[in-house]
Amino acid sequence: MNYKSLSRFTALILLIEAALMSPALILAIVFHEPRSTAAYLETLAIILILSGLFFLLSRGEKADDFYEKEGLACAGISWIVLGLTGALPFFLSREIPAFIDAFFETVSGFTTTGASILSEVESLDKSLLYWRSFTHWIGGMGVLVFLLALVPRGTRGSGFTMHILRAESPGPDVGKLVPQIGRTARILYLIYIALTALDVILLSFDMPLFDAFCIAFGTAGTGGFAVTNAGLGGYSPYIQWVTTLFMFLFGVNFSCYYLLLRRQPRSVLKDEELRFYFLTFFLSGLIMGLVIHPAGGNLEESMRASYFQAASIMSTTGFATVDFNLWPSVTKGILIFLTILGASAGSTGGGMKCIRIQLIFKDLRSNLKRMIRPGRISLVRNNGRPVSDNVLENLRTYLSAYVLIALISFLLLTIDGKDLTTSVTAMLACFNNVGPGFGEVGPMGNFGSFSVLSKLVLIFDMLAGRLEIFPIIALLSRTTWKHD
Amino acid sequence: MNYKSLSRFTALILLIEAALMSPALILAIVFHEPRSTAAYLETLAIILILSGLFFLLSRGEKADDFYEKEGLACAGISWIVLGLTGALPFFLSREIPAFIDAFFETVSGFTTTGASILSEVESLDKSLLYWRSFTHWIGGMGVLVFLLALVPRGTRGSGFTMHILRAESPGPDVGKLVPQIGRTARILYLIYIALTALDVILLSFDMPLFDAFCIAFGTAGTGGFAVTNAGLGGYSPYIQWVTTLFMFLFGVNFSCYYLLLRRQPRSVLKDEELRFYFLTFFLSGLIMGLVIHPAGGNLEESMRASYFQAASIMSTTGFATVDFNLWPSVTKGILIFLTILGASAGSTGGGMKCIRIQLIFKDLRSNLKRMIRPGRISLVRNNGRPVSDNVLENLRTYLSAYVLIALISFLLLTIDGKDLTTSVTAMLACFNNVGPGFGEVGPMGNFGSFSVLSKLVLIFDMLAGRLEIFPIIALLSRTTWKHD
Repeated sequence: MNYKSLSRFTALILLIEAALMSPALILAIVFHEPRSTAAYLETLAIILILSGLFFLLSRGEKADDFYEKEGLACAGISWIVLGLTGALPFFLSREIPAFIDAFFETVSGFTTTGASILSEVESLDKSLLYWRSFTHWIGGMGVLVFLLALVPRGTRGSGFTMHILRAESPGPDVGKLVPQIGRTARILYLIYIALTALDVILLSFDMPLFDAFCIAFGTAGTGGFAVTNAGLGGYSPYIQWVTTLFMFLFGVNFSCYYLLLRRQPRSVLKDEELRFYFLTFFLSGLIMGLVIHPAGGNLEESMRASYFQAASIMSTTGFATVDFNLWPSVTKGILIFLTILGASAGSTGGGMKCIRIQLIFKDLRSNLKRMIRPGRISLVRNNGRPVSDNVLENLRTYLSAYVLIALISFLLLTIDGKDLTTSVTAMLACFNNVGPGFGEVGPMGNFGSFSVLSKLVLIFDMLAGRLEIFPIIALLSRTTWKHD
Repeated sequence: MNYKSLSRFTALILLIEAALMSPALILAIVFHEPRSTAAYLETLAIILILSGLFFLLSRGEKADDFYEKEGLACAGISWIVLGLTGALPFFLSREIPAFIDAFFETVSGFTTTGASILSEVESLDKSLLYWRSFTHWIGGMGVLVFLLALVPRGTRGSGFTMHILRAESPGPDVGKLVPQIGRTARILYLIYIALTALDVILLSFDMPLFDAFCIAFGTAGTGGFAVTNAGLGGYSPYIQWVTTLFMFLFGVNFSCYYLLLRRQPRSVLKDEELRFYFLTFFLSGLIMGLVIHPAGGNLEESMRASYFQAASIMSTTGFATVDFNLWPSVTKGILIFLTILGASAGSTGGGMKCIRIQLIFKDLRSNLKRMIRPGRISLVRNNGRPVSDNVLENLRTYLSAYVLIALISFLLLTIDGKDLTTSVTAMLACFNNVGPGFGEVGPMGNFGSFSVLSKLVLIFDMLAGRLEIFPIIALLSRTTWKHD
């Protein structure tokens, strides 16, 4: 392990975090929130001191000694550091008195989960509400990708950027839009900013500007923290439809938008993952709408509630307009299925990702054919091109890790004595970065009553989910920490 | 597909079933059960006519055209045929009025699941209770293995026996005890009969002989149908401890007993799967015992209840002495974990099997190491020997199929409108051939109130679980049915 590079990297991440936190400080001053102002100032001081210390530790760094394991460790460590330091404003302002709760809330923010320990959000200082939502926006595209977007070309070995991007990017394979990784990161961020800005504008027609920003951050990052206790239930149908649309859009692979900008709509329309994503969304919304419709309201209301929840859970945002905890079983089944399925690779959403389920299915079919008729070769294809063995191998490893982590997390959560539905769906909602589950952690419930052990397990799950497992479990392996 | 061989095979299976059903007819006559007597006579007539028809269809068979896909299809089809015809005594005697219920109960019997649609078993004719338990005993070791044990050496191509055995045997790899497969099958059956006989003798000291036979059948096959409404709760502590011991023993890989007979106790003690199986059983029982102890009773009672349930669920038998549906959450979590884990490969038990979880874990570790340090080779070993890529490949395919089937089954079950705990655990209990779950399908509940669709889904799950997925999903693939 190249500890010096790891230190330098952590120092950089902390600097970026300080920069990203500054607007919240300004808001605290503007809104006359003395406790939050003090908390932000203290936090920024701590972050800058830590950053300085890490820079000191990194002296004499050999930047070229940067391989897979350094990439994995940097990704894992930097997200934990972000969570720990990002929690300080909540903790130091005493708005969230227990540090474990503040840590949970912040990791939930950065990982775009949106699971909250707060029973009452409206009493929070506005600058904290802003920071809480902004962590979603930062986490959605990835802090490391942000760093790459800033890094000038050629300052680092390609090992550095490539391994970092691979470790943080969602989906089974890293698609480089253009040969230079820094440029890819910049293009992605520009699309991200443009879509977010459009969302803010459309939302601001019918809600306060502050709310519009916060909700747009939560939507863009597919996070799910709201600024009112009623979630999005208190806003107009217009706001709800706009948010449904944008939740769906932020769950689409961003390379589709790049292709659209490059005027290649045909390749976008033919994309197998996009088709699967859209079809699943369309059918889930339709079925759930028809199931809940007899319970009352007109058809528009039923379909609005249904499609909102479908987009929210499938994109792993987790906003809610109604308490779907009270819906019939089959809709709960669909929502749990969507929780695990998740959004598209290369989007800001979480979950297993549509393409993984598609590839698992295709891989299974191909292996089954080989089992039935040995000697026949049956390739797994995506968009007409054969998928490499390496990608399939990683996919199977991912699935094994997913199942084992899910099982063990669930087992640890049951120690808390909550009912099975709460334990299972809390784990699934955090591991897939969705936010709300069922039972006590339904859309109108919260995660506050879990024990410290359970919260630590769920924090692990949120990080493992957001970083697609490997950077987090790599931290647990001795191989990562060995001196070479 | 070699349809003629498939027909001949089905004809043979039906003949064997008729032979295995005859003792039940004799019991019906002895116990003066006129309706059951008539039902058995009608059933035997139908089976013999069907068998004759299939023999006619198989004329001109080319026995050497027997490959993997014929093995898979024979295994899948014969178990479905056994379920359909084995259900006739329940249906024709009107003791179970709906055919889907009789089919469910019989598949549950043959697959050694033990999930019942009956709310009241004591009112059933005794000959039917006997047949119900006996299906467990037949299914435990496998009908096809039984057929192989009967087949004289050299009557068939080795393709025939090998492919059948591979398709029906549980566990990631077929261990041949001796080079001749027929002899392997005979040795396995002799161990099975000897252990069952020992169980009957020990049980008969403290319970009626009829009950002793039925409970021993349910224990040996790791099935779980009981003959009283209270499960095993009404019997003495002695009976409960004996059953705990034998449930554990029937969940052990039978090759361990063969090695003991060959006086190689050291290889048995060193067996990694056996150690894991024992340790998990020991710890689960201990933890659950300590958790439930404060609720009352002396320590022996708590430990007896706890170890009984641990052995029952882990061996996938499914007997119950108490209503563990009322136990604290953490014990439920452990029991669900044991449900999925299951018994050992090469035992009569179901579930994923200990060795699969061990190999998944080792495979994950090895892949993770390769990811952290590319270029390094890290072999997966079991009992000191490297595990072949082929076995690992099949393991990963198995896991993908397991996850997809579990998800889709769960989704289909939620249409029924039952609560999530009931839907999830009903699926897990059937898919892993355990029997009882939680909620409505707890040990004191039953599967009677599910819809026909749900019952069909659960029948599919039970068959897929018992045959380790592939023979059943192979039936759904066009490749299987193509003419060559």
